[in-house]
Amino acid sequence: MEFSALLTSAGINIGLCALFLSLYSVLRKQPHNYGVYFGRRLAEEKFRQQVDYFSLERLLPTAGWIVKAYWCTEEEIRRVAGLDSVVFLRLFIFSIRIFSITSLVCIFGVLPVNYHGKETNHGRIPAESLNVFTIANLKEGSRMLWVHCVALYVITISACILLYYEYKYISRKRLAHITGSPPGPGHFSVIVRSIPKSDNELLDDTIRNFFVNYHGSSYLSHQMIYRKGSMQKFVDNAERVYRKFVRVKMSSFGQSRRSDLSRCGLCGVRASSFQQYRNKFINSKKPDLSDPEVIEAQKDCPGAIVFFKTRYAAIVASRILQSSNPMLWVTDFAPEPRDVYWSNLWIPYRQIWLRKIATLAASVAFMFVFIVPVAFVQSMMQLDQIEQLFPSLKNMLKKPFFVKLVTGYLPSVVLLLSLYTVPPLMMFFSSIEGSISRSGRKKSACCKILFFTIWNVFFVNVLSGSVLNQLNVFTRPRDMPSMLAELVPKQATFFITYVLTSGWASLCSEILQVYNLVYNFFRKCIFCYRDDPEYGYSFPYHTEVPKVLLFNLLGFTFSIMAPLILPFLLVYFCLGYLVYRNQILNVYYPKYEMGGKLWPIMHSTLVFALVLTQTIALGVFTIKHATISSGFTVLLIIGTVLFHQYCRHRFSSIFNSFSAQDLIEMDRDDEQSGRMEEIHKHLLDAYSQGTTNMDNSSSSRNGGAPIEMIMEDPAQDAQDSNQELCDAVKEVTGSIQEHADEM
Amino acid sequence: MEFSALLTSAGINIGLCALFLSLYSVLRKQPHNYGVYFGRRLAEEKFRQQVDYFSLERLLPTAGWIVKAYWCTEEEIRRVAGLDSVVFLRLFIFSIRIFSITSLVCIFGVLPVNYHGKETNHGRIPAESLNVFTIANLKEGSRMLWVHCVALYVITISACILLYYEYKYISRKRLAHITGSPPGPGHFSVIVRSIPKSDNELLDDTIRNFFVNYHGSSYLSHQMIYRKGSMQKFVDNAERVYRKFVRVKMSSFGQSRRSDLSRCGLCGVRASSFQQYRNKFINSKKPDLSDPEVIEAQKDCPGAIVFFKTRYAAIVASRILQSSNPMLWVTDFAPEPRDVYWSNLWIPYRQIWLRKIATLAASVAFMFVFIVPVAFVQSMMQLDQIEQLFPSLKNMLKKPFFVKLVTGYLPSVVLLLSLYTVPPLMMFFSSIEGSISRSGRKKSACCKILFFTIWNVFFVNVLSGSVLNQLNVFTRPRDMPSMLAELVPKQATFFITYVLTSGWASLCSEILQVYNLVYNFFRKCIFCYRDDPEYGYSFPYHTEVPKVLLFNLLGFTFSIMAPLILPFLLVYFCLGYLVYRNQILNVYYPKYEMGGKLWPIMHSTLVFALVLTQTIALGVFTIKHATISSGFTVLLIIGTVLFHQYCRHRFSSIFNSFSAQDLIEMDRDDEQSGRMEEIHKHLLDAYSQGTTNMDNSSSSRNGGAPIEMIMEDPAQDAQDSNQELCDAVKEVTGSIQEHADEM
Repeated sequence: MEFSALLTSAGINIGLCALFLSLYSVLRKQPHNYGVYFGRRLAEEKFRQQVDYFSLERLLPTAGWIVKAYWCTEEEIRRVAGLDSVVFLRLFIFSIRIFSITSLVCIFGVLPVNYHGKETNHGRIPAESLNVFTIANLKEGSRMLWVHCVALYVITISACILLYYEYKYISRKRLAHITGSPPGPGHFSVIVRSIPKSDNELLDDTIRNFFVNYHGSSYLSHQMIYRKGSMQKFVDNAERVYRKFVRVKMSSFGQSRRSDLSRCGLCGVRASSFQQYRNKFINSKKPDLSDPEVIEAQKDCPGAIVFFKTRYAAIVASRILQSSNPMLWVTDFAPEPRDVYWSNLWIPYRQIWLRKIATLAASVAFMFVFIVPVAFVQSMMQLDQIEQLFPSLKNMLKKPFFVKLVTGYLPSVVLLLSLYTVPPLMMFFSSIEGSISRSGRKKSACCKILFFTIWNVFFVNVLSGSVLNQLNVFTRPRDMPSMLAELVPKQATFFITYVLTSGWASLCSEILQVYNLVYNFFRKCIFCYRDDPEYGYSFPYHTEVPKVLLFNLLGFTFSIMAPLILPFLLVYFCLGYLVYRNQILNVYYPKYEMGGKLWPIMHSTLVFALVLTQTIALGVFTIKHATISSGFTVLLIIGTVLFHQYCRHRFSSIFNSFSAQDLIEMDRDDEQSGRMEEIHKHLLDAYSQGTTNMDNSSSSRNGGAPIEMIMEDPAQDAQDSNQELCDAVKEVTGSIQEHADEM
Repeated sequence: MEFSALLTSAGINIGLCALFLSLYSVLRKQPHNYGVYFGRRLAEEKFRQQVDYFSLERLLPTAGWIVKAYWCTEEEIRRVAGLDSVVFLRLFIFSIRIFSITSLVCIFGVLPVNYHGKETNHGRIPAESLNVFTIANLKEGSRMLWVHCVALYVITISACILLYYEYKYISRKRLAHITGSPPGPGHFSVIVRSIPKSDNELLDDTIRNFFVNYHGSSYLSHQMIYRKGSMQKFVDNAERVYRKFVRVKMSSFGQSRRSDLSRCGLCGVRASSFQQYRNKFINSKKPDLSDPEVIEAQKDCPGAIVFFKTRYAAIVASRILQSSNPMLWVTDFAPEPRDVYWSNLWIPYRQIWLRKIATLAASVAFMFVFIVPVAFVQSMMQLDQIEQLFPSLKNMLKKPFFVKLVTGYLPSVVLLLSLYTVPPLMMFFSSIEGSISRSGRKKSACCKILFFTIWNVFFVNVLSGSVLNQLNVFTRPRDMPSMLAELVPKQATFFITYVLTSGWASLCSEILQVYNLVYNFFRKCIFCYRDDPEYGYSFPYHTEVPKVLLFNLLGFTFSIMAPLILPFLLVYFCLGYLVYRNQILNVYYPKYEMGGKLWPIMHSTLVFALVLTQTIALGVFTIKHATISSGFTVLLIIGTVLFHQYCRHRFSSIFNSFSAQDLIEMDRDDEQSGRMEEIHKHLLDAYSQGTTNMDNSSSSRNGGAPIEMIMEDPAQDAQDSNQELCDAVKEVTGSIQEHADEM
């Protein structure tokens, strides 16, 4: 690709970005889009809707949102969107810092060396091939390779220093978050699974006896987890129908402008009345052990939530092996009520190891199957192959504009589109893996998507030419560095356009919320539902974190190979920082908190990116016969690995556990202030099991979100909505019929 | 190699074995060898020495020891030699069982198929090449490969069943051992390291305040760990000189026949009087914070041993993160007093991660350096290469006996001898790694030697031809199965002779205790030391476990490739079982207990051996175009991996931790029986720091071994002994001089 083709691509993207951002600044001012662009604020801050009068100002693009997003403090963000958002934004800050340094070093140090690597007559820069700017332009045995080695040292050392301070900063934030957060039921609760069944004792009594016996001084109470039986399904269905009914009534025939909160309260009360109804069913069943139905229910019980009097007691119970058979009385720290993933709690504990292996195998298999579309994308870079496949396009492909479009733009669009199928699938894998919390599921999905992205976007694209060829490469790990060293600079063009398309365009699509916008439009203007603010879904860390980390990886690996990528990346990070700040403040509603647990993943990935960069550089130095630089690079690799190990020892435990010191101090504070009594009282009804919406409705009473705010994806829900309503009505009718028959 | 050469080798070895075993049965009856062959019994059981009258019976070989070793019960072995010995012997029982099955299946099923694989005229069996008996004799596309596949299934399934029951059995034994063992100080103690220093508080007070504050209800007391200062070195030296003096006096001029116990008691008392002296020094230093010497001592203090009132409290304190900085207040379960490795306790905690990485790197580097002698051994198998190297041997190498000797016997002897350098080096690596217990150090050394042995004996021998060639192989992991499939049958000859020489001969050398026998002879007859029973050193698990596991690995991998190895192995395991039983009962004195923690390592290695076998079989089936068998083998590999994962989940926690249930029950028992008071009293003076001999002398008061029993290696100690005495006297004189000057 020529430099001018790159400029074309950049031009298209800058234009598109400007267009989309202006569009956003206009669209966000239209009152009927408030639900799309101010989901969180509508849900949480009782955001006042302005009166819907028309003004010219509403049609003019403005940049006020950027200013607002920029001036918001970190503490404010933590308060409204949780620690995870802060951590995510810190990743951007780190990226901006390190790539500012990298850009300086590489554009002014490395790029001129590359450009003047071979003694050729340079023509006009726009007509130059992009390869002239990469390290491939240097002769073998060139004396100027020390510049690259020094640049590598500068980049690595600054990255390590920045990473260390970020880790330190975020651990401090996390500790402050833990000690500063209000007492949550999760801190006092432990989930016990795989409880041994006995024939002559109720399961309820078994649990009580065990904990009174071994944790008598700190045991408070417990709550059984019941698997959904037929009776419960009946109750759940009734509830669902009721809610659907309420919703349909409201959106179609209801009052035109009611407060959302009144509705939420209404649902909440009704929902919990259903719950009491169910609890009565369960309670009435309790005492008779001779009843076969009770025994059946006992068999189905996969565990219990046990409440303790203090946080410290809870963590002790969750960390210590309870029984001499490690497969019995398995304890685990309980997630916060909103975070519990009930349907996974019903999975018997002995299945979990098998599920984990199976999902791992499935993810790996999928990673390899996905090579097919990636190879297709790569083949698009070779025009002659396309001509062979589609002879009819021959004439069109002769036109220079189309050539630029096809080689510079289309491949990464295709890759981007095919990548959209990955997150739902990985989320599905993480669901069946058996995580008991929603945050755990999202974290697991995040890791899977991260591996997937790095493998399929970076490695496969770099190494592919044809599918067979690249599989051959992976069977020789020793040749990897030199192989990568040869191939990486060649792919610089592709990845620069990938940053432009996937990076910049994805930011625009993120801020415009295209999907929700269209959905909202159809809902309001075509189907005439009125004013239904169902958009408070949570931030998709599992898709965004891998994306940003991938761009970091690209930045590091190409920094000294093909420094031209750096300015585009820097723009991406700056724009991304503003866009995500805005989205976090206005759109996403945090349903559960991961407590910054994503940072260790980010840190490890960034260190991996550094080591990969160094390995590729080592390969380049070896190919170009720069022995001294190779030696220094090996030292640098060892240093980076040691740095990572140190950070792991110094910080990682903070993200996996709580310290006795902190927990005991918090317990003492609560006891001295007399809050403990109240906490214990709340504890007992904090966890209410049932449908997803139900447990959320209970949380909404504690100042959380209204019911409808809690759906994973509003669009999908809408599609299922009508079908579900019909099904639910049918089911309830069926159940009533059945019960009538039984009686 | 021909079958007859194998028979020669086997003949030589059977003869040698018979000779050595007869020799042993004679030597053990000579009273002046009692110290060599009955170390443990002399040390522990007050074994009565017979009067030294001469009889003809003493010179006749007998087999009574075999009977005695065989009829001893497992419970008896556990009582006298600890759980580790039981676990080690269970490995032999497992091996005998599985290789009985394997031999049956392979000798009667696989061997005839291999032998009749190609339609050649078989001559007399002794003149046949050994290759005729291996799988290499089968044609490509042979239909008889299903026999091998079925054999593989039978072997794997029986191995998994046996492994599962062994794991279950040993976990039950371990639990019984924990609950049944008398209360040891280790159960109530926690080692705290990396204590934050404060300027205005004594370290002693810091520790007390911390534990009283956060573990007030269960904290009992604590004991500082001091780094050896100059004063302490002086005391230690004086102690050493005293002990040397006592020893020299006794062995040279002392009474001719005294009870060992009286001497031990004598030393014990004196040693502890020295200890009180030192403690007084430490105590006198305590109160004044302004003293710069105290501040210096504080700086040097790397940690403390904290005692708790109950076992449960101790395990809670050791398992929970104490401070929000994971590098401060690091807690760890304390080893038993005899097991503490004091000099490693003095290592600052923040060095440990670095030491671990460094030793890992050093071990790996050593593994690769060791390829050189292995390649030399391999080159000995090719006669023409030797002829080239040593042209003068040309005539000798023409004689058939020498040919058989050189190809069939010498290579494995050379390998065996060079392998003797490995255990001390790996033990050294494990020492500087920073393990705080002797058992931990031994376990770590065991793992290192295991990796080393499997890599250098199995892989390098199988894959080598020339050093360069084999390095090439390792860079292509995908080709490994087929590569192994081609190479493993070719090396059958070498490994059969390896079993004969290294296996059988090492058993003979083990039972004869050649080194100690010679040492003892020189000591008594040449240097005229009389009757010095210094032989109670502990069982070398770190060398023996890898050896036995290697033979298991060889057995599995060659079972269907070259079944001729199996009878030799079976003989090895049966003989080994008797020999080690005898040695454990008579010779070795268990100084510390690993509590069966070696079993998980053994289990994993055995599963690895199974998977390796299956992988090689997969390669063979692929090479020979047996598609169906390949498919079934892949299924088998998946099944084996799943089995391993299940075992890990089911059992491994038992070996890493203690359960709350067990510990609380034990605490209650002790409290109800009123023993707790007494335990607490003993606790405070259980850990006495200082020289190795000192802390052992304190343990000897609790019914342990006498002082001289505790040295790691008596032979080495003897060499150093005289030199040490001189040095120590010099040092003490110097110290006294210094102190006199100071005053």
